[in-house]
Amino acid sequence: MKNHTQKTHFPNVSPIQYKGPDSMDPLSYRFYDPNKKVGNKSMAEHLRFAVAYWHSFNGDGSDPFGWGPRPMPWNEGSTAEERALNKMDAAFEFISKLGVSYYCFHDVDLIDEGDTLSESRKRLDFIADYARKKQEEHQVKLLWGTANLFSHPRYMNGAATNPDFNVVAHAGAQVRNALDITMALDGENYVFWGGREGYISLINTDMKREKDHMARFLHMAKDYARKNGFKGTFFIEPKPAEPTKHQYDYDAATVLGFLNEYDLADDFKLNLEVNHATLALHTFEHELAVAGAEGMLGSIDANRGDYQNGWDTDQFPVDIYELTRAMLVILRYGGFQGGGINFDAKLRRNSTDLNDLFHAHIGGIDLFARALEIAHQILEESEYSELLKNRYASFDSNDGKKFEEGALSLEDLATYIGEGDQLKLISGRQEYYENLINRYIL
Amino acid sequence: MKNHTQKTHFPNVSPIQYKGPDSMDPLSYRFYDPNKKVGNKSMAEHLRFAVAYWHSFNGDGSDPFGWGPRPMPWNEGSTAEERALNKMDAAFEFISKLGVSYYCFHDVDLIDEGDTLSESRKRLDFIADYARKKQEEHQVKLLWGTANLFSHPRYMNGAATNPDFNVVAHAGAQVRNALDITMALDGENYVFWGGREGYISLINTDMKREKDHMARFLHMAKDYARKNGFKGTFFIEPKPAEPTKHQYDYDAATVLGFLNEYDLADDFKLNLEVNHATLALHTFEHELAVAGAEGMLGSIDANRGDYQNGWDTDQFPVDIYELTRAMLVILRYGGFQGGGINFDAKLRRNSTDLNDLFHAHIGGIDLFARALEIAHQILEESEYSELLKNRYASFDSNDGKKFEEGALSLEDLATYIGEGDQLKLISGRQEYYENLINRYIL
Amino acid sequence: MKNHTQKTHFPNVSPIQYKGPDSMDPLSYRFYDPNKKVGNKSMAEHLRFAVAYWHSFNGDGSDPFGWGPRPMPWNEGSTAEERALNKMDAAFEFISKLGVSYYCFHDVDLIDEGDTLSESRKRLDFIADYARKKQEEHQVKLLWGTANLFSHPRYMNGAATNPDFNVVAHAGAQVRNALDITMALDGENYVFWGGREGYISLINTDMKREKDHMARFLHMAKDYARKNGFKGTFFIEPKPAEPTKHQYDYDAATVLGFLNEYDLADDFKLNLEVNHATLALHTFEHELAVAGAEGMLGSIDANRGDYQNGWDTDQFPVDIYELTRAMLVILRYGGFQGGGINFDAKLRRNSTDLNDLFHAHIGGIDLFARALEIAHQILEESEYSELLKNRYASFDSNDGKKFEEGALSLEDLATYIGEGDQLKLISGRQEYYENLINRYIL
Amino acid sequence: MKNHTQKTHFPNVSPIQYKGPDSMDPLSYRFYDPNKKVGNKSMAEHLRFAVAYWHSFNGDGSDPFGWGPRPMPWNEGSTAEERALNKMDAAFEFISKLGVSYYCFHDVDLIDEGDTLSESRKRLDFIADYARKKQEEHQVKLLWGTANLFSHPRYMNGAATNPDFNVVAHAGAQVRNALDITMALDGENYVFWGGREGYISLINTDMKREKDHMARFLHMAKDYARKNGFKGTFFIEPKPAEPTKHQYDYDAATVLGFLNEYDLADDFKLNLEVNHATLALHTFEHELAVAGAEGMLGSIDANRGDYQNGWDTDQFPVDIYELTRAMLVILRYGGFQGGGINFDAKLRRNSTDLNDLFHAHIGGIDLFARALEIAHQILEESEYSELLKNRYASFDSNDGKKFEEGALSLEDLATYIGEGDQLKLISGRQEYYENLINRYIL
Repeated sequence: MKNHTQKTHFPNVSPIQYKGPDSMDPLSYRFYDPNKKVGNKSMAEHLRFAVAYWHSFNGDGSDPFGWGPRPMPWNEGSTAEERALNKMDAAFEFISKLGVSYYCFHDVDLIDEGDTLSESRKRLDFIADYARKKQEEHQVKLLWGTANLFSHPRYMNGAATNPDFNVVAHAGAQVRNALDITMALDGENYVFWGGREGYISLINTDMKREKDHMARFLHMAKDYARKNGFKGTFFIEPKPAEPTKHQYDYDAATVLGFLNEYDLADDFKLNLEVNHATLALHTFEHELAVAGAEGMLGSIDANRGDYQNGWDTDQFPVDIYELTRAMLVILRYGGFQGGGINFDAKLRRNSTDLNDLFHAHIGGIDLFARALEIAHQILEESEYSELLKNRYASFDSNDGKKFEEGALSLEDLATYIGEGDQLKLISGRQEYYENLINRYIL
Repeated sequence: MKNHTQKTHFPNVSPIQYKGPDSMDPLSYRFYDPNKKVGNKSMAEHLRFAVAYWHSFNGDGSDPFGWGPRPMPWNEGSTAEERALNKMDAAFEFISKLGVSYYCFHDVDLIDEGDTLSESRKRLDFIADYARKKQEEHQVKLLWGTANLFSHPRYMNGAATNPDFNVVAHAGAQVRNALDITMALDGENYVFWGGREGYISLINTDMKREKDHMARFLHMAKDYARKNGFKGTFFIEPKPAEPTKHQYDYDAATVLGFLNEYDLADDFKLNLEVNHATLALHTFEHELAVAGAEGMLGSIDANRGDYQNGWDTDQFPVDIYELTRAMLVILRYGGFQGGGINFDAKLRRNSTDLNDLFHAHIGGIDLFARALEIAHQILEESEYSELLKNRYASFDSNDGKKFEEGALSLEDLATYIGEGDQLKLISGRQEYYENLINRYIL
Repeated sequence: MKNHTQKTHFPNVSPIQYKGPDSMDPLSYRFYDPNKKVGNKSMAEHLRFAVAYWHSFNGDGSDPFGWGPRPMPWNEGSTAEERALNKMDAAFEFISKLGVSYYCFHDVDLIDEGDTLSESRKRLDFIADYARKKQEEHQVKLLWGTANLFSHPRYMNGAATNPDFNVVAHAGAQVRNALDITMALDGENYVFWGGREGYISLINTDMKREKDHMARFLHMAKDYARKNGFKGTFFIEPKPAEPTKHQYDYDAATVLGFLNEYDLADDFKLNLEVNHATLALHTFEHELAVAGAEGMLGSIDANRGDYQNGWDTDQFPVDIYELTRAMLVILRYGGFQGGGINFDAKLRRNSTDLNDLFHAHIGGIDLFARALEIAHQILEESEYSELLKNRYASFDSNDGKKFEEGALSLEDLATYIGEGDQLKLISGRQEYYENLINRYIL
Repeated sequence: MKNHTQKTHFPNVSPIQYKGPDSMDPLSYRFYDPNKKVGNKSMAEHLRFAVAYWHSFNGDGSDPFGWGPRPMPWNEGSTAEERALNKMDAAFEFISKLGVSYYCFHDVDLIDEGDTLSESRKRLDFIADYARKKQEEHQVKLLWGTANLFSHPRYMNGAATNPDFNVVAHAGAQVRNALDITMALDGENYVFWGGREGYISLINTDMKREKDHMARFLHMAKDYARKNGFKGTFFIEPKPAEPTKHQYDYDAATVLGFLNEYDLADDFKLNLEVNHATLALHTFEHELAVAGAEGMLGSIDANRGDYQNGWDTDQFPVDIYELTRAMLVILRYGGFQGGGINFDAKLRRNSTDLNDLFHAHIGGIDLFARALEIAHQILEESEYSELLKNRYASFDSNDGKKFEEGALSLEDLATYIGEGDQLKLISGRQEYYENLINRYIL
């Protein structure tokens, strides 16, 4: 490290500034003004944006049909350490110019794995030292760390759910290292995305046994971290499928059921991703509401899917509706429990200009900022909250209230309703609600 | 009832007989021989087939784009009672000629609702008297009853989850009646399919409150039935959507989480439907395995969906793979917990010959019978069970076993694996397994 | 008719007025100002809105799981004629208050079918007389007429593609009547949507023969209308499936191929629907571009689907992105060829207030008006058009131009490129384009 | 080449033999007996199996979430030439032991591309010399060749449809080489699969211009090959999406329309793939029927998709229904027009034993052989063909026949049908047909 010389990787881009809605400068923010208050918190406090190391600094645009066209000038160097330093310079330059306060990584994003576990650990320790300096220098924090337990061939049959105990043990060693480095860098949270924790075919799988192993593994990781002083939250990131046929962490409801069943709900919350929601045939707001209602909405991975494709396209957010309806739910449930908004999104394969990385993030950040403002207005200034509350007013008093309190029997209901011939139809007024939303967007 | 004269509705069809695999008679069974032993139970004991009243005797082939072409000669009579008697004659003639032992119904399948709850109840009591006679005469039993809480406009915003308490109360009165009649007919189980228990739009919905109401309602129904001596099982039937945008009973994992969260798991199990599984982007065997692993596999609704369409086509089963893989799971988990195989399937709109109803059921019954035999062979005669067991052998002894028992820490795993450089890749051999299955099918 | 007394069906609603973007009156337009110029045409001339008779005046909110809750006070009267007159009063009151200039119908929307073809014709002539008066009185025109060849059981196996010639002949008689009434009302176009022209199962279908019949039938209809002086355009409305498993008019590309193959392209163009596009896994803008590029973009059916459901939800438009990107294509290809924007959209089942019908249409109309403005700005004021043109600049001169002109051979290409080692990657800049769109929307 | 020493790559596998349906040897054929007659052709003549070079000898099991675990011992050698020779030895050993007569390749499958076009050409000529020897030695023929115009970054925006003419020219040079080598090896056909010929986003795309370019390019390739004596057929392989958002060769109907529009239908036919069909929401039999009805069914790529996933899983065939219904269509339309059955299928990522490659192909080959027999029986021995013909009997004489011949007008239809009140509903009998199919399968 001592001979390492920093290079500038984005020399043509100045720090991105807020210039207001009429700005025609594509390298400015039109809506994101970090210190602007929305309700009692600033935009930055509400949104807690993070840049994802993997897509932005390791992703070369390859896909199953071709190798990667994307230039990554930071991938230079004759040793793993040298390349890792250059990449980290680029990452912190980018994060800093973008003006956000967080980043996220997998262990292997930071530096290449070694041939042995001890060599890998040595490398991680090396790059962690540099990361700590960079964090301080740029006032950037680690939103969460995680271990990549899916890319290496050893995990082809799963990591914690591998039918071979040796692989489970290897995963354990890798997670220990990832936890250590996350703690060393004051990571605020730690994430599990079990890309291979599921099955490719049920025909050769003992699903129950594998799920038991997964729960066991999570307990072990949690116990280790807690014992070593980790105070943050653990997140599970649901995804229904891909690369597996079926991933055990299918969607929010499935994961909540799992956490409850295996007694993990006190330490774990959910990290929800837009594209994962839509792959599971849910809207993103639905997944947020499922988690939020149980106090389990930890963090989100921001991106978007393609409604006509069935794989994880991880595009940058562009839809104000998707984000407004997300922010409505997030605000209603009190914001993120420990997490923030991580851009788990990648440039299109054919976006090969270095500036494209800025445009993509700026678009996403501005859209969240605008969605936050709109959602706040809808909740605080419009008739929306009142309309919604009134829809359930019959449960706020009398027999409806008794019903909610558990004080009525089935016979009581029958007695109450009598002949049942006086019921009135009450319109759900969906189109009215939808117009109301559009009134604040357009 | 005293002036009621029975008519024959299927005069050209004799009771369907088992005639063996080479039979060219389309009105015979090639595989279903009720008394044939498969393992230690007869085919009839394994499969417990039921005919669904609604599709077979009330369904006229209408769809959202047109009214129903299907002739239903039993729909004659100047009063609700007379029509109900004729329909019941047709139903029991059909069930009896088909040679199955069970049927299932919604309250309103048996007889039209009245204008008031007391009139509806009177009608139900009337037709229940006749049903009891018919059951005895034909040695047919009621697999399960249920209440239709989705067709009437009053339920347009849901039943137990309606934002209006009055509708919840009406649903309660209706369920009480349906429970009474199910008990009066010695129904072995009772089912909840919450067709409208969900949301059309999340924007006008308080999801958490609605789910709480649903749980409350289920407790009340269960308490009422238990108090009145009902010993059977309650089933929840998951479906992800349709007619709603989102149904709270989304899939097996979601419902299991719900039952656990609301303390209902001791009395409720799952009734899983093929087409509902595929609408939720699951295979049917997956849903069965999720439920079976927890001892919650109560019963199934047999049909099939269309993999290219996104709605509930409810076609009759025709795929030996789907059923073989279903029977593999069902056999592995010890069969149905209280339920059986209900043909919740309907003729295509353009299948308008009365005999089409026989062909459809014969095809489905024969396929399940063959699937049962094949699955039994695979499990008992082939190398399959051994292959599967061996895949997890590393957890059956030594450190793998200790891991399962919770006796290892994350550090222990790291110590065990050491440098991690000796791992061997172990093939999942999926193609080999798939050939094995085909060896028993073809 | 002479004793018919008009009633007011929407007494509480005044004609909807343009009140500007800040209007808080939910029964006003914020963006739709019919006479406002956008480029060289007024909004009304660009958009040519039409109200659909079927969803708005015949649709009662029924779905496959329940009958219709929607009150339709106009459905009163002891004869078909009386009910038809009342319904038509309601329709024209609504259209008129909404301030749009067109409507569309199926034959059976106007008045119930009779028991015989001559009785049906008599009824159609009766109501056509009244419609002509109403059109004049309210200055409303018929955008297009069509025949419903899918709801009656006789069409369960198809109409023009029915395997039974008798049904084909019946469809012919019905289409003749529908053409006559469309011409009598100065209908500007005539539409074919072949809801049952496809197959439920390929196993019992001779697809080639059925498609030949369909082409034959369309020629006969066209010849008849032309002979009788019809000058308008015929439209085919693609839809991939539902109620069929596969509809022959699958999507825009399929229909264009069919029209070319069967020599129908001179008289027929496409009527494209949003929800039909998404059911075929296309975006709406894609379908528009496919048709527009060939000069075949006739008209559109405005609505939206649900990206998580696989059936035709026909909801009202609410998404400014979908409409902006549609208007971009429509403007680029010179607007509609004969048609306009027909709201083939229905209220949600639980929207049972009469005013909901206004809110739904107002929302849709305003959104199209705003989308028109935005698309016009993007095309005329932004750098968009130039960016797009420049992307293909290498084909505007030299060898690229020769290539386009067909003047190069494969060897010429090889000679031109030489060693091929000097190629530069040119970014597609998708994220930049997407930000550009959002700059004009937000 | 002169110093090249052949190695045995599958030493433990003997040539696969037909051993009859009761064979328990997983490395034998139970149904595929190449010389067995089915109708007037042998199984080998009907089915014309080919092995795909890419998946079987270049595919390492990598996916978007991880690198490849699959051992490929043939990938050894210090030069591109040496590695290519070793790989070709492995390929021909495999093909030969499998006992099939064809193989297929992309140019870059055979040998790595060079840095310049002339270096690439030199390498291709080198390996082609060796391939010719191997073909003779093993009596194996080239079913078709093609050029990979999608993996290299230069094609990230398309090849023939690239907005940059330089890339189009490069693609032209590459196709010329691929045509030359295909002709040099007596390739019977040549395929175009335009993996990147489509758009990632319509917003930055001039679709019409790109499609014109594609047509131009195909004409140039065809003209070149014909001029140089190529007598085979050109195939287009439709696929709806992936890696693009939309591929111009979307499905069979779209491609047929394109070929007709651009006057390419005399030289081009379709190469249809199972998984591409299902990604386009079609059944495979549907795509076959669309092509077959127009005499355009050239060849097929055998594999299967996953009905719950939305990407191209390319699994090996395991479903007798899918193949039986495919073979029914193929036999009805007279077999393949020039092509055969190419296993464009890959092992699952976690199938890492070398023998897995044999099991996968054996399963697929056997299944096609059995499907051929079943389909032949259904068509020749069962009532199926007669049933289907009779369904359309009303068009075989009298007015129905006149209608088909174009001798009737719309008025004639109306006259023929009169009052239309005597129509009879004729059941489609779908369930009966489905049982009939199962009678021959089970």
